[in-house]
Formats: sequence, structure tokens, C-alpha cells
Amino acid sequence: MTILNGIVPPVLTPLDPSGAVDVESLDRLVDHLLAAGVDGLFVLGSSGQVAYLTDTERDLVVERVVARAAGRVPVVAGTPELTARRVVERAQAAERCGADAVVVTAPLYALNDAAEVAEHFRMIARGVSVPVIAYDVPVRVHSKLGVDLLLGLAREGVIAGVKDSSGDDVGFRILVRANEAAGRPLRITTGHEVVVDGMLLLGADGAVPGLANVDPAGYVRLWQAAQASDWVAARAEQDRLARLFDIVFVPRGRSGDAGGIGAFKSALVSLGVLGSATMPAPLAPLSAADASAIEDILAEVGLLGAEAR
Amino acid sequence: MTILNGIVPPVLTPLDPSGAVDVESLDRLVDHLLAAGVDGLFVLGSSGQVAYLTDTERDLVVERVVARAAGRVPVVAGTPELTARRVVERAQAAERCGADAVVVTAPLYALNDAAEVAEHFRMIARGVSVPVIAYDVPVRVHSKLGVDLLLGLAREGVIAGVKDSSGDDVGFRILVRANEAAGRPLRITTGHEVVVDGMLLLGADGAVPGLANVDPAGYVRLWQAAQASDWVAARAEQDRLARLFDIVFVPRGRSGDAGGIGAFKSALVSLGVLGSATMPAPLAPLSAADASAIEDILAEVGLLGAEAR
Amino acid sequence: MTILNGIVPPVLTPLDPSGAVDVESLDRLVDHLLAAGVDGLFVLGSSGQVAYLTDTERDLVVERVVARAAGRVPVVAGTPELTARRVVERAQAAERCGADAVVVTAPLYALNDAAEVAEHFRMIARGVSVPVIAYDVPVRVHSKLGVDLLLGLAREGVIAGVKDSSGDDVGFRILVRANEAAGRPLRITTGHEVVVDGMLLLGADGAVPGLANVDPAGYVRLWQAAQASDWVAARAEQDRLARLFDIVFVPRGRSGDAGGIGAFKSALVSLGVLGSATMPAPLAPLSAADASAIEDILAEVGLLGAEAR
Amino acid sequence: MTILNGIVPPVLTPLDPSGAVDVESLDRLVDHLLAAGVDGLFVLGSSGQVAYLTDTERDLVVERVVARAAGRVPVVAGTPELTARRVVERAQAAERCGADAVVVTAPLYALNDAAEVAEHFRMIARGVSVPVIAYDVPVRVHSKLGVDLLLGLAREGVIAGVKDSSGDDVGFRILVRANEAAGRPLRITTGHEVVVDGMLLLGADGAVPGLANVDPAGYVRLWQAAQASDWVAARAEQDRLARLFDIVFVPRGRSGDAGGIGAFKSALVSLGVLGSATMPAPLAPLSAADASAIEDILAEVGLLGAEAR
Repeated sequence: MTILNGIVPPVLTPLDPSGAVDVESLDRLVDHLLAAGVDGLFVLGSSGQVAYLTDTERDLVVERVVARAAGRVPVVAGTPELTARRVVERAQAAERCGADAVVVTAPLYALNDAAEVAEHFRMIARGVSVPVIAYDVPVRVHSKLGVDLLLGLAREGVIAGVKDSSGDDVGFRILVRANEAAGRPLRITTGHEVVVDGMLLLGADGAVPGLANVDPAGYVRLWQAAQASDWVAARAEQDRLARLFDIVFVPRGRSGDAGGIGAFKSALVSLGVLGSATMPAPLAPLSAADASAIEDILAEVGLLGAEAR
Repeated sequence: MTILNGIVPPVLTPLDPSGAVDVESLDRLVDHLLAAGVDGLFVLGSSGQVAYLTDTERDLVVERVVARAAGRVPVVAGTPELTARRVVERAQAAERCGADAVVVTAPLYALNDAAEVAEHFRMIARGVSVPVIAYDVPVRVHSKLGVDLLLGLAREGVIAGVKDSSGDDVGFRILVRANEAAGRPLRITTGHEVVVDGMLLLGADGAVPGLANVDPAGYVRLWQAAQASDWVAARAEQDRLARLFDIVFVPRGRSGDAGGIGAFKSALVSLGVLGSATMPAPLAPLSAADASAIEDILAEVGLLGAEAR
Repeated sequence: MTILNGIVPPVLTPLDPSGAVDVESLDRLVDHLLAAGVDGLFVLGSSGQVAYLTDTERDLVVERVVARAAGRVPVVAGTPELTARRVVERAQAAERCGADAVVVTAPLYALNDAAEVAEHFRMIARGVSVPVIAYDVPVRVHSKLGVDLLLGLAREGVIAGVKDSSGDDVGFRILVRANEAAGRPLRITTGHEVVVDGMLLLGADGAVPGLANVDPAGYVRLWQAAQASDWVAARAEQDRLARLFDIVFVPRGRSGDAGGIGAFKSALVSLGVLGSATMPAPLAPLSAADASAIEDILAEVGLLGAEAR
Repeated sequence: MTILNGIVPPVLTPLDPSGAVDVESLDRLVDHLLAAGVDGLFVLGSSGQVAYLTDTERDLVVERVVARAAGRVPVVAGTPELTARRVVERAQAAERCGADAVVVTAPLYALNDAAEVAEHFRMIARGVSVPVIAYDVPVRVHSKLGVDLLLGLAREGVIAGVKDSSGDDVGFRILVRANEAAGRPLRITTGHEVVVDGMLLLGADGAVPGLANVDPAGYVRLWQAAQASDWVAARAEQDRLARLFDIVFVPRGRSGDAGGIGAFKSALVSLGVLGSATMPAPLAPLSAADASAIEDILAEVGLLGAEAR
């Protein structure tokens, strides 16, 4: 199985109304994704609201998804922590729980230079036996992983892939080119929902779109069209998914963490996949009016039939 | 003639060794671009180093390019200034010099909210009779033009297009979609050299790539392939142009304004279009070693024959 | 006369209801400041809303204030422009209009490194015969002038002083120390209204507080207490002025440029100094309710008697 | 004992050459600080390199310092973690280990609005029985704690103090004033080494300067002078300490985390307090040349006699 290839949804973490991890809903979500034909699963990402989970809950999520996936697709796991020795503790836990790779950001809270960030990744790679994927998400980490850093680590065998959530199309294209020139040591995926067609055309190996929790089949169709070089079909499917992505703009005046994932959870309740749209405290769930507006969009793009409403 | 359609190079401003505008080289550059089949010309942009020109020099550049283009393609002109009444003075000058449209940023130095920025654009539109194009370049202006602002101004008839140099692929896609939903009141172009294929696939109306000064024919081929929905050919041409774009990485340790435009000017000297690669003070020109390394890349992508070196 | 010593208010630019410069109000404002005993005047600063004035209006302001001050205190003038050759045009105009020094920021819109910024200041110093004062205001210029850069330029004789509006107390203290170690080639002033006592204790040569337009006598008392090393009195006066500074928080939900200067203008109308609180378009004036709340604060700190309301 | 009053050094975490916590050196450091008369100890702060410690090591540090301080001064402990439920786990551990208060930042990695940040602090306050101190350090947390948020939480009884490391003198002064107007529900301290005199004049309740690890007696003298309103003496002591602070500029080209703390550790080795200047991986220690240059400064300010070198 190839790590980071095709559509790899960042799996949401369902909670029950008390705020505990809802493992039955998590099982249903995994089934929903695998039935659509996704190529891998990324647990404990930003869409998985990993920042709000305790270590015990993180381990539970990895174990449960690994068990449910049962080897059909690779499961990669996020490990956000402040610095390398703390990440290693989390990465080893993820490996023990069955993760096929770990997804690692630059240090948080610390103030490091590029050489220190490179050594951070080396320390983590030495601490686990599964591959390490670099996660570039400046909006949360507040530093950008440069092309030279990533390619250098790839050539050393420290990292095997990059999950790019930087929203920087130019940097992404330059990374893809440099990777090709270096013999493709990296698997490179985009994390952004509405530019998957363009990024695949530019040379991405796949996508990790949070919206794929809601419509995995749509992203699988987009991927298959791109694989067939049918870019007109890919663009058409992307247009439909971009309309679906409007669900994240339904909630107004909400924080970055509350609006988007709240909309995904609300949609998955409407689709019968999740039992509850509960958000981790201190995030509040969406309003009933927002949930209803989201259902209108689900219906418009064909995900929700009239009978279901 | 449609403003902002297809390939619209942001025309460099050639200087002679004394630092004065080199109008003969400017004429040759316009000829070089038009011969390749570009669809429009954008003078006094960031690539034109407008920030370093006096008002007298700005007027000279507009007049000369308008005269040389002689109506074959539209000429649009940048007008960077601190606030609206100052922009209006520059925009009226550009109009007097024959510009077909003016390209306008949000205020500089001022600290405005979105309503004030909207009124800024309205004040400018009232001050000229040519169309106003919004220029979104946060790396220089330090504020981002939001989708709601741009679409609102478009619906009011205040702006006719957007030159997007924000490097934000997600925001670009969302703008394109919102524009389509609104009946396409805006012409939307990307300013980034290496993602033109992806952005055209996503729905851009054209591109304003600085690198098109060096290889306008390459970008015209890319555009034509995209128009024919031959995305495989578009991607191949983009790959070649991305390799050519490596010339901007040849100079090491240079400022944002010195490296990239310095490389474009150096390349155009090697190609016989410009008489000098002089940069405006306080920017220093590239070294001879850099110029030689740039020629190697020009040769590799087929722009410079062995006999020329 | 020493440039940048003691209290140097950044003079507001009064406008009449049509938006034109109100020179009679400007005269009264100069009289108001000089009567209180200020040590200098800084025209065309951010408080002077220089970004919103045309070049013609800028020249008018300098000429009028120079004439009214009539040599009693030095008049320094701001020259915000994109790059050095454009600044030189404005600085020469200010010198022709009688300014005793020019106040210069790093380049705007341009993307320069430290060496280029240093040369920027050198180009300007070569272009005028009056002293150059560096203006460090990162919130508007989006780059910070470093200690090494400033001290280097001071040792070369390029700059004579620094107006610090960076809000970075640590950087300010380090600059003051480095300047003392270098033999005090620079005059260093703080631009922040509510920390003048602390910054004078730390070694500042003076202050350029916008609020001094409203209560110049208060700042003169603060300065005199500091000169007498009566820091308890200085702190007490600063406390009173900090309460007065609350007028800038009266307007809610306004932009950075609209709220604070709007409050100063409103207060000066209430005090009978200005004829109108008109703001330059696209900035809207404050509401009547805001003006009334500001008068309450003016009364509380003893600037407005009961009979005046 | 008052939490956050006077000089409260952020205690360094000494490591032995293998990278393990060096508890004997830690004991000596506590003795060094208490002998100088400091008013409290802050463990697990940024100066304590908390980001690089595992949870086991964090607990060890709190226990050891609490035991060594033996109730003579309050010991407060940092708890940096991503979100509230994770912070509560760390805060409860700190409380079990004997900490007299916990020091808490806004969420890391998460993207929250002000209401969610307020609830974050409430969740933590509900989880422990010791006081909660808010830690405002935007350079690491990448969000700023606003005056309204802090005063609101203080009035609710959620937080008891603020450790301000924002470097924003204006915001600090406004917070101090608002706190005074509210009846002083908060203890407010500055974390910056070179502006303690000015911030005490402005009304701070104390200081948490990393440099106080090196010269606690100097900061105690500064504090006592300020308490006696002898601001001339306070300024003189601050000048001396500002010269000592130059040790952090000795290492050139080092990261934010490597240079400053590296200099403090190097100085404490020279002073015989620490057994080793070992830094946590991936941070490298300072060079011998840097250590020697630091000794020169220690000698200059009278901390190191000729016989010691």
C-alpha cells in the first residue's frame, strides 16, 4: 500500500453529546469512507480536532480506525506536540496502535531555525519505525516548511511525504517540481478542498480534503478523472464539490475551528453517518438554522434526497 | 478589446546604465511581446518596478507603450499611491497618456476597514472614465481584498476585473466560483508564473506572469492549449516554463525586489531585447556569474541557441 | 534649536466641511500648541493624516505651520512615499517650504533588504540639506528598522534622530542604550501617548504624542517633571493623560485611521481650537454621541469647564 | 504569600551532558535565587525550556523546586499545552507536585475566537484549586490576550494575574490602568529584562525577567529602589542590567530558543551555579568563544572577579 496516494480523508472525530469519543459513529464514518473507495485514512489531523483530544482519546481513535479499516487502506496518524521528544512519545503510541505512518509538524511554541527544524524531524524519524510525513500548516504552526528543508529531509530518508495545507499554490508547484527533479522521493498531497483539480494537474500525488468526510465519492470521482487525464470531468466534479464546500460558509461569525468542522459534522448527522454534531469544548455546535441551511446545500448537490428531510 | 483576457505580461521598465528609462529597449520589449501574440500589456506593475519610478517616468512609460502597441492590444496601467485622491491623480494621468484601464490596490500606509476600502475604489472609479481593475497583492499592500468586497464592487460596476497576486489558491478558487454565480461581472487573472495551468483549469480568465516578458510565446502556447481544453499540453508547457522560472532562484541572498526582476532583465539582455539590465537604485544588478547561470537555463529550455552565447 | 527634544506634537491637519485644508484652524492649533510650551512641531505625520493629502496640500500645510511658528520652535515634516527618489521630491518640497528636518520611513510597497533600506536613507540624505529623521512605524510600513541599521546610519551622519512608533519597548530600550554607547549621535523619541513617563525614564529624548494636540500643557508638565527627575509627578501626570487617552476608545468598531484621529479632532472642536472635525474621505467623522462622550472625559480631566458644555 | 509580586525569576532547567534534568544544579540555582532575595519562582516557563521537556521531566522540576524552596516563596508553574482539557491534566499534575499557582497561555495550534479563549481559561480554573495566571506571549502563542478578555476573567475570579511577555508597552500600560480602575483584581508583571524600571514606574506589580537567573541580586536592588520611589537609582541599576543583557547578543545567527537561554546557561556555568550549559536537542550549546565573550561582560558588570577566570 502506498502512503499518501489518491484521496486520503482527514477523518473527523465524532463525539457523543457528553463530549466523549463516539466509537460507533467513528466506525460508521470509516465504513462511509471506505465504501466510497478512498485510498487511505488520516486520523488525528486538524479536521479530527486532534488539538482538543487527550492522549488517551488519541490512542483510542487510532486503534478503532485501524481495527475498522482492517488493512484495506493505510491509516496515517497526526502527532501534534510542542517538540521532538514529546512528538516521539505520541508517534510511538500511534505506531503501537497500528498507524502505518505518522504525520508531523514543525515544533509548536518553540522558536527554532531551519537547521533545528530539520533535526526535529530526524529525531522523530529515529524514534519510530513507520514512515514520517511532514505536515505543513502555517496557519496553525506559524512557520512554513521550505522546499530546501523538505527535499533535504527526503533525500536523507527522514520523511516520505508532505501534507501541504499552506494554501500557497506557488510554493506547492515549486515543491512538486523540485521533487520530480530529485527522483520523486516524496509523496505530496494538498489539503485544500476546492483546488484539488488544479493541484492534481500541477502534479500532486493526492489530496487530503476535510470535505471528503462528507462526500468521499465525489472526491474519488475527481481523482479517477484526473488519473484518466479527463481534466474537463475533473473540473466539473470540482465545481460540484466547491458548491458543497459552501456549507463551511453557512455559519457566520464563528472561529476557525468552530465553523468548518462544525459544518462537516452537521452534514454527516444529516446524512445519517454521525449520531451527533457535538463539538469539543470550548467550541459550540452550530445552530439548527445553520444545520437546515447546510441540508439545503446537501440536497442541491445530490447528497440528500427529498425523502430524507 | 477585452480587458484582462489571456496572457497580459506585466511589462518590465528597461533602464539605461544611468538609471533613466530606456525607451528604445522598451519599444523592443513591446515588439517582442506583441510578436509572440500576447493579449494585452500591463505597464507600471510590480514587475515594471513602478515603486521606483517618479510620476514623470510613469507617464513616459504609459505614453511610449501605448504608442508602440498602437491599439493592437489593450494597455492597462498601475497606479500605486497611498490613498484614493492621490490614486485619482495618477489614474487620470494614465488615462490622459492613453491607458485603456487602471490597476488599483487597496490603500497603502493607511489603516482602513473594508467599508473604507470599498469607498476608496468608488472614489477612484468616479475619477476616471476607463475601467478600474483591482490589484490584490498582500505581500506589498499588507491587506487582502476579500471575496465579498470584490463581488460587491463588481455588482456596483466599480471594478471590472481582478489581478490576483495573493498566492492564495483557495481564495482564488472561491472568488472564481462566486464570480460565476454572479454572472461573471469580473475578469479574473492570476499573477503567478508557475501555476497558470492549474488556475486556468480552475476558471481564471487569463494570466499576468512576469516571466512572460522573457518567454511570451511559451505562455501564449499554454493559453492556447487551455483554450482547447488540452490540459496535458498545457501542463507540459507549464513544466517547461516552471523550469525557466528557476532563473529567479539563481541570485542568492537578494531582496524580493532585486532577485526576480533582476533575473528577468538579465535574461532579456541575453536575448537581445534589452540594452542593459540596470536596476533602479538602491537595487544592485545581478553578478556576471548569475547572468551566465541564467543563460544556461535559457539554453536548456530552448530560448538561447549555442551560437548566441 | 534642537531637533526632536522634549514634546513635539504631531500636528493634526484640520479640514473644513468641504474636505479642504482649513488654514485658519491650523493657525489656531499651532497657537494652542506653542502657548502650552511645546518644544517642536511635527507636521505631515500619521496624526496629520498625511496619507490622505495630495502633494499640493502637503506643501500648503508645511508653509502655513512654518509661517505661524515663525522660528519659535523647529518644524519637522513627514514625507511618506514609496521609494527614495520619490521621497527626495517630497523632502525637497518640504525643505523649500521651510521645514527644519524631514521625517522618513523605510520604503513602502517595495520589498527591500536591510542594505537597500540603508541606501534608501542615504539617497534621501544626499538629496536634502536639512537633517533626516528616521520614522519607525511597522504597523504602517510593515518592516521594522533595526538597531544596527539605525546606529550605522547615525554614525555615517545620514540620520539625526528616530521617531519610534513601533510599540516595542524592548527594542526601544536597546536602541537607547546602543545610542548612548555610541556617543548619542541620535535624538530618540517615542510616539506613544501612554508610556511617555516610562520611556523618558528609560532614556528617551522626548515624545511625539498625538494626544498632545488635545492637551499640550499636560505633556509639557510631564516633560518638565521628568527633566527634574520628579518621576512621581511624571507618573501622576501620565496617569491623567492616560485617562484622557480613553477618548480614542470611545468610537467603537472604527478603523485604525478613523477612531483615534477622529477623537482628537472631535476634542479640539469641543475645546474651540478647530472649526470642524471633518475627516478626509473615505473616513467618516464620529457620531454626535461619541463627541458627547469625549466631552465627558475632557471635563473629567479638567480640560473643559461646565460653562463650555 | 502574594503570587506575582516583586522579582519572580523564570527558573532555568539545568541539564546534565546527557540531556537529563540536572537536579543538583537545579537545587543550586534555587539557592542562588533565594539567597538574593527574590520574591517568587516561576518554573516551566519559556526560560525553563518547558517546550522541550516531557511530562515526566516537568513534574520532576516542579517537585524539586517546591522541595528546595520549602515554602519560603511561592512557586508558580507553567503548563503549555494545546487546549484546555490537556492543560488541565498538566495543571493538576503541577498542583499535585506542590505548585502554588499555574501559568496558562491561550490555546496553541487551535484557531479560537475571544469567547472560546475565555471559556478555555474558565475550564482550566474549574479544574484546579490553585490560582490561574494568564501568560501573554504572542511570539510563541501567536495570539494576543486583550484587555477586555483579561479584565473580564479577573472580575469573574477566573484569573489572578498576568505575566506579560508581549513586548507591547502601550497595551501593558492600558491593562495596568484598566486593572486599577477595576480595583486591582489582577497582579500584573512584565517579562522583559531591559524595561523593568519603566514598567514598574507605569504601575507593574513585579517582573519575571529571565536574566534574573544570572543576577537576581541586581533585579532585587532595582525592585527595592522602585518600591522606595528612588527612580534614579532604579534607572541606574536597570542600565547595569541592560549591559549584562548584552550576553544574549553574543551568540550570532542562532535561533530564538538557542541564543538567549544558551547565554544565561553559559553565564551560570561561569558563575559556578550550573554544572553544564547543555541545551535540549535539537538546540546546540554555545561555542567556547561565546562563553568567553560572555565572561567578559559578567566581569564588566561586577559578577565575575579576576580570580574566577
